[in-house]
Amino acid sequence: MMTIDPVDLAKALIAAPSVTPATGAVFDVLEAALAPLGFTVERFIDGIEPDGPVENLLAVRKGAGPRHFGFAGHLDVVPPGIGWTGDAFDPQVRGDLLYGRGAVDMKGAIAAFVAAAAATPPEAGTISLIVTGDEEGPAVFGTRALIEHMDARALKPDLIVVGEPTSMQRLGDMVKIGRRGSVNIWIDVPGTQGHVAYPHLADNPIPKLVRILAAIDTVTLDEGTRWFQRSNIEFTDIEVGNGATNVIPASARARLSIRFNDQQRGAELIQMVERIAQDVEPNAKVVGKISGEAFLTPPGALSALVSDAIHAETGLTPELSTTGGTSDARFLHTLCPVVEFGLINATMHKLDEAVAVADLQTLAAIYRGILTRAFGA
Amino acid sequence: MMTIDPVDLAKALIAAPSVTPATGAVFDVLEAALAPLGFTVERFIDGIEPDGPVENLLAVRKGAGPRHFGFAGHLDVVPPGIGWTGDAFDPQVRGDLLYGRGAVDMKGAIAAFVAAAAATPPEAGTISLIVTGDEEGPAVFGTRALIEHMDARALKPDLIVVGEPTSMQRLGDMVKIGRRGSVNIWIDVPGTQGHVAYPHLADNPIPKLVRILAAIDTVTLDEGTRWFQRSNIEFTDIEVGNGATNVIPASARARLSIRFNDQQRGAELIQMVERIAQDVEPNAKVVGKISGEAFLTPPGALSALVSDAIHAETGLTPELSTTGGTSDARFLHTLCPVVEFGLINATMHKLDEAVAVADLQTLAAIYRGILTRAFGA
Repeated sequence: MMTIDPVDLAKALIAAPSVTPATGAVFDVLEAALAPLGFTVERFIDGIEPDGPVENLLAVRKGAGPRHFGFAGHLDVVPPGIGWTGDAFDPQVRGDLLYGRGAVDMKGAIAAFVAAAAATPPEAGTISLIVTGDEEGPAVFGTRALIEHMDARALKPDLIVVGEPTSMQRLGDMVKIGRRGSVNIWIDVPGTQGHVAYPHLADNPIPKLVRILAAIDTVTLDEGTRWFQRSNIEFTDIEVGNGATNVIPASARARLSIRFNDQQRGAELIQMVERIAQDVEPNAKVVGKISGEAFLTPPGALSALVSDAIHAETGLTPELSTTGGTSDARFLHTLCPVVEFGLINATMHKLDEAVAVADLQTLAAIYRGILTRAFGA
Repeated sequence: MMTIDPVDLAKALIAAPSVTPATGAVFDVLEAALAPLGFTVERFIDGIEPDGPVENLLAVRKGAGPRHFGFAGHLDVVPPGIGWTGDAFDPQVRGDLLYGRGAVDMKGAIAAFVAAAAATPPEAGTISLIVTGDEEGPAVFGTRALIEHMDARALKPDLIVVGEPTSMQRLGDMVKIGRRGSVNIWIDVPGTQGHVAYPHLADNPIPKLVRILAAIDTVTLDEGTRWFQRSNIEFTDIEVGNGATNVIPASARARLSIRFNDQQRGAELIQMVERIAQDVEPNAKVVGKISGEAFLTPPGALSALVSDAIHAETGLTPELSTTGGTSDARFLHTLCPVVEFGLINATMHKLDEAVAVADLQTLAAIYRGILTRAFGA
């Protein structure tokens, strides 16, 4: 068996700049690492403007055993921003830390998983790497396209681990077993423009919008569940755009964001907002855009297996959580049980993103332990 | 006595473009008409950027009689806008109408008053024309500066008629005996920006602003008076300016306009809004800008005199009203009783502003009747 150093591979991946959407060079680096390990690597480009094109990579190594383990991740990164100590795309180890955009989110985890796969006997079981170049962007032609691609090849993992940075204070302290859903909703209230001195000739949309928002503000969607915090509504914008102090505006618009647990469905939330809005103003227009429904992989064999592997390497028993934003697990959970586990997320999306070198080695060992347990060895 | 044709003078005034603030040529036209009538004309420029400089004109003809009658108006006009049938500053009579920017608001009325003064024996009483170049704009260095100028010369009319276009359907159907006050108020609610997925780390200002506005929406300021409609609050803008769907904004701002009668005071209204806002959010910031307090010249000798002159020429008994926006009468009422009377306002500030030629002649006759009655002849 070949040995792969996750630190070296993480450096090579970081050194290939891949601000979302990732293309070309960074995929070349990953492909070059996987091919010698016996993986069949397929790369394909999907989608059109504005949400595409997007490059994706599917790597499969068929094993003798019956189990099929999937590891999912992304090679795109968020823009570095201004103010890094060094070059965000020139990986540098300073002290105990490896610095670079993507170090924890999530080139480091991909490198650790490749190292784990290298250390796993090929015959033990089938391994798929499901890697997109667009998770930080629109994500329309990323993991969704990979799922279609796998469907077309009748590839269906039994378990999937997504390598997002889920650890909080120490590597191994948190595993995500679900994610809330997310929907953005726009409310447009029409009115009739006029002069403030003659309000009877106008129809001011702002008091109506205020009444709508006040009613929404009183809504309690649920009390949360054993695994989820309560669903939450946040008003994120109001826009009238009326510069004239003596004019009653012609329309008023609000936007809200709902992060919701598995007691809610995006479409029903949009309908609820529409009912409230049209109770106040029948001509109010409500438009919603669902980013993802809530999902949960209830604690069971998969989370137990991951927790066991974490405990074996770190002595920690991870918290099983559903907090945080969305991830591509929202798409993958339609295939099979999915959990997410990866590096400490403290520096993700920030300046001087960095991973402890030791954590990369430990994560590789944990992923190897997960593979061993998944394949029943 | 010289005769002045109000139509000719109105044309000459319209032909001198004077989008607010008016300067130079249009004042030259008026001065040239007044000087031969025995008026002493003073022109002066007051104020600095951004609300100045502003040109004003004070014309006085001392009479033998003890009474001092003031006529107040403005030579500035609002911008013509795009879409006139002809040139807004090329006065044209088509059919019964004289077209041009300022025809009714209010170069026509000034021309009619000059014609009335020309037809009034100089010895009958003292006449002042109080004419500003900035009524449609900030009005900081316009009529207020004229009042200071008159104070400095110990000139104090006993009665003032403001020649604003107060007539609605027919010339003479409405006289204004007061105006509502006006105040704009801004409410700023601070918050703490954050990610919608982590609302406990943020402090959303929008629900607080909604609660503040909902509370204001329930306020009834008064029920109106014998002479005033009820005071009215209009929300005119809400601004958050948050483009990101996943961000809880750092602040939210609303603006409202209150038109109020003489039961309210601007400063107290600002304080009321501040109380309501700070009940919800102690750090809310409330700023108000009073455009003018309400004023009323209760029906009495002046309105009776004006009504009588109108009735004598038109057969109409004007309604005594306090409706509509503010005017410079808000400043002049500190000097003496003030009423407003002028042309039909249907086309003011609109495209193809026009006055009936016959109305200009009738208005000159009414103004002459007012002077005759004011001087007790």
